[in-house]
Amino acid sequence: MEKVKPYIDANKDRFLEELFGLIRIPSISSLADRKPDMIKAAEYWRDSILKAGADKAEVIPSDGNPVVYGEKIIDPSLPTVLVYGHYDVMPVDPIELWKSPPFEPEIRDGKIWARGADDDKGQAFMHAKAFETMVQTGNLPCNVKFMIEGEEEIGSPNLAKWCEEHKDMLHADVILVSDTSLIGPDIPSITTGLRGLAYWQVEVTGPNRDLHSGLFGGAVANPINTLAEMITSMVDENNRITIPNFYDDVLEATPAERELLNKAPFSSEAYKKAIDVEALRGEKGYTTTEHTGIRPTFDVCGIWGGYTGEGAKTVLPSKAYAKISCRLVPNQHHEKIAVMFKEHFEKIAPKSVKVNVEYLHGGQAYVCPIDLPAYKAAEKAYMETFGKQPVPMRSGGSIPIISTFEQILGLKTVLMGFGLESDAIHSPNENYPLENFFKGIETISWFYHHFAAINRAKA
Amino acid sequence: MEKVKPYIDANKDRFLEELFGLIRIPSISSLADRKPDMIKAAEYWRDSILKAGADKAEVIPSDGNPVVYGEKIIDPSLPTVLVYGHYDVMPVDPIELWKSPPFEPEIRDGKIWARGADDDKGQAFMHAKAFETMVQTGNLPCNVKFMIEGEEEIGSPNLAKWCEEHKDMLHADVILVSDTSLIGPDIPSITTGLRGLAYWQVEVTGPNRDLHSGLFGGAVANPINTLAEMITSMVDENNRITIPNFYDDVLEATPAERELLNKAPFSSEAYKKAIDVEALRGEKGYTTTEHTGIRPTFDVCGIWGGYTGEGAKTVLPSKAYAKISCRLVPNQHHEKIAVMFKEHFEKIAPKSVKVNVEYLHGGQAYVCPIDLPAYKAAEKAYMETFGKQPVPMRSGGSIPIISTFEQILGLKTVLMGFGLESDAIHSPNENYPLENFFKGIETISWFYHHFAAINRAKA
Repeated sequence: MEKVKPYIDANKDRFLEELFGLIRIPSISSLADRKPDMIKAAEYWRDSILKAGADKAEVIPSDGNPVVYGEKIIDPSLPTVLVYGHYDVMPVDPIELWKSPPFEPEIRDGKIWARGADDDKGQAFMHAKAFETMVQTGNLPCNVKFMIEGEEEIGSPNLAKWCEEHKDMLHADVILVSDTSLIGPDIPSITTGLRGLAYWQVEVTGPNRDLHSGLFGGAVANPINTLAEMITSMVDENNRITIPNFYDDVLEATPAERELLNKAPFSSEAYKKAIDVEALRGEKGYTTTEHTGIRPTFDVCGIWGGYTGEGAKTVLPSKAYAKISCRLVPNQHHEKIAVMFKEHFEKIAPKSVKVNVEYLHGGQAYVCPIDLPAYKAAEKAYMETFGKQPVPMRSGGSIPIISTFEQILGLKTVLMGFGLESDAIHSPNENYPLENFFKGIETISWFYHHFAAINRAKA
Repeated sequence: MEKVKPYIDANKDRFLEELFGLIRIPSISSLADRKPDMIKAAEYWRDSILKAGADKAEVIPSDGNPVVYGEKIIDPSLPTVLVYGHYDVMPVDPIELWKSPPFEPEIRDGKIWARGADDDKGQAFMHAKAFETMVQTGNLPCNVKFMIEGEEEIGSPNLAKWCEEHKDMLHADVILVSDTSLIGPDIPSITTGLRGLAYWQVEVTGPNRDLHSGLFGGAVANPINTLAEMITSMVDENNRITIPNFYDDVLEATPAERELLNKAPFSSEAYKKAIDVEALRGEKGYTTTEHTGIRPTFDVCGIWGGYTGEGAKTVLPSKAYAKISCRLVPNQHHEKIAVMFKEHFEKIAPKSVKVNVEYLHGGQAYVCPIDLPAYKAAEKAYMETFGKQPVPMRSGGSIPIISTFEQILGLKTVLMGFGLESDAIHSPNENYPLENFFKGIETISWFYHHFAAINRAKA
C-alpha cells in the first residue's frame, strides 16, 4: 500500500482534468432538454471506468436516463464491492448568484467551483481514481463493480426496476457510496443514517380566471391567501407536523442514541453565523443536531402565483402553486406519507377553492449499523488518512435509493462521504476542496485494503 | 339633439378604427421598457382631441409619463366639464391565456377584444367621440377640458403634483370619468363610491443563501413557510383584518345605506357560476355586495420564492416575496394604513427571518353625493338612452386619483362608466361590447345637454 499515496500525488493534475471533463457536461436531470447531456455524461463515465482498469463497462438503458455499469472481477471467490454514484446534477438557478459559470470548473482558494464539484461528480469520481490507483499499484484485493446512475437528483424513479432486472449482475457484498459530508475538514465522520423524502407539487384554484382585486376582492377566496393558510395549518406552534398519523411510524431514538448523537461537536452560534440568521427554529424538545438528523420536516421548497413582475398589479389570481417536501426518518414509509398528505391537503381545502396534489417523488430513510464489517473497514481507512477515528453521524439529507438497494439487492451501504457543509451543494457556487478530493481517493483505496483484510480474517 | 344619434351611427366604423389605433400602442405603465409607447399613446390622444374639435391640445410633461391636456372654451361664463381618463393599461400576463393578441384589437361576438378595450382606452375614447359629436352637430352647450394621464394603473404617483402645478388651467365645475361598470347590460347604474387602495411588496429573508433542505431542513426557518404564516395571521376566522387599529377610521354604513345598497339585483348562484367557485368567502356579517362595496380587503396579488421550475428541487430557500394589497373604504387614510401595515408586518416577523416592506402605491376612497347637480344630469342622460333610472352603486374598485382631485381641485367627480363585469379588465381576454361603446358616446352627449340645462335653470 506504500505506492498508493505517491501514485495519487503523481497524477493529481490528470485526475482533476478528467473530473473537469465530466463537470463540463451540464447533466441536469430535472430539465427535459438536457437529455443529450445525460447520454454524454454516461458515456464519459463508461470510458473513465474502462480507462481506470475495468474488465468491461457499458451504458445500459433504463426507463429513464441510462445507468453506467462496469466491473473488474479478479477472483469470484473474493468479496465484491459495488460502487454507487450519480452523474446527474441539480439545476443551477439562481444563475446570477454564481461567481463563475456553473459548468466551467475553476480552481480558486484551493477549491473546485462548479455545479457537481461535490454532488456527486467530484465525490463519485474519487471512486474511479481510487480504483485506478489500486489497479495500477497492484493493490486491488477484491472485486469491484460500478453502478453510476443519472436520475438521483430527481429521486431515482427508474433505478429500482433497473436493479430488479440486473440483480444477478449486481451481486456484491456491500455498496460503497460517496455522496455525504464530513462534520468538518479535520473531523472525519461516516454517515450512518439518511432521512427519507416525500415531495409534492400542489395547485390551488380559486376563480376560473384572474379577477380585478377591487371589483371582486373581499367576496371571493384568494387562492394565494388560501394556500398560505393551508401551509400554515400543517405545522403547529411546537413546529410539529399536523397531518394526522404523520408520526405514527417514526422510530423514536432512545435516550442513549440521542446522547451519542449530541456528542458530535456543534456550535449554535457558529451555525447561525454561517447562514446569517439571528435565531434557529425547530421542533420543540429536540436539539439542532436532532432536528436535521432524526426528525421529519415540512418545508415549502417553492411557491408562486399571481403577479410577480415589476411594480404593482391589482389582481385576485386564479391559481397558486407550491412545491412542498417532507424529510422522513427511519420506519416512515414515503408512499404512505404521500397518500396521507394528499388526503389531508384535500380535506383541509375550503369549499371556495379546488386543489390538486401531485406526488413528484420520494424515498425511504436508511440506517447503517456500526458493527457491520464494511463499516469497520471504512473506520480503519479514515484512521489511516485522518489519523483519527471517524464519528458515526446521522445526515439530514436523503439518498432514497440507498434503502431501495437494501430491499432489492439485500445489501447494506457504507456512506464514505468527503464533502463539507460549506460546499454549497444544490446552491449557487457549489465547491469541493482539492484536499478532500485527493484525501477521498486515498481513503477509498485504504477501504479496499481493510475490507479485503477483514473478510480474509473472517474466513 | 336629434342629430346626435344619426351622427354616431354614420361614423361608427371610423370611431372604431380610431380607437383601435390607440389600443394598438402597448402602453403598459408598470413596465419601464414601455416608455416610448407611453409617449406615442399621449400623442395619439392629443391628435384625437384636436381632430374632435378642441381649440388646443398638448402633451404636458409630468414627473412620470406625460399628461394630455385639451380644451374647448365656447364661453367662459358657461359651466365647464373636465373629462379625466387614462391612456395606460395593465400588463397582459398570463399571455398564454389570451385568445387573440392583446394589442391587436379584434371584433368577435359583438365585442372588442384587446387589453384596454374597456379599461380605459375604450371608455375614455367615448369622451373624445361624444365631444366630437356635440361639436359637429352644433349641440355643445358648455366648455370642455380633457386631462388624460398615463399612470393610473400604477396609482397615479405624479398626477397630484401635476394638478397642483396646473390648478388654474384645470378650473372646472365637475369632473366626468368613464372607468367603471354598469350592473348589467340593461341595468344602468352610476358608481357613487370607490374603494381606496394600499399596495406593498414584502420580502422575507431566512438564511443568506439557498440551503439544502435535507442538511438544514428542520433546524432553520424556511422564509416561504414563515411568509405563509405571516400572511395567514393577518386575517382572522371571521375574515377580518388583524392589523391593530385597521378599522378605526372606517365610516360604518348606516342600516338605511346598507338596505339601499342591497337592493341592487344580485344572484349569489349566478355570481359563483360566472367565476366557477363552489363557495364565496367574505367578512362575517356582511353581504357580497357589501364585501366588495363598503368593506376593506386583504389580498395577496402575487407570491414567489424558492424553486418554481420544472420538477423537484429540494431547497430551503433564502428568500420569499409577496405583493399584498388592501382595498380601503371612505375615511380610511391610505398613508396611515401603509405605516400601520409596515409596523405590524415587522412586528410579527419571528427573529429567525428578516423582513423588508416597500409601499408601492395607494389612494383614498371616494363618495359622490346623489343630489349633486352633475349626478342629476347624468341620471337624466341614462334615462334618455336606457329608458330607465340608473341605480346608484358602490364599486369595489379604486381610482385613487378621484379623491385627490377633490382635495386639490375642490371638484366632485361623476363616474359614468359603461363597462360590464364580463369585460375581464386586468385579466386575459379583456373585452368591451360595441353596444356599450356607442351607447356610452350617446349617453355622454346627453350628459352635456342636461348638465348645461340644469346649470341654466339654477342661474
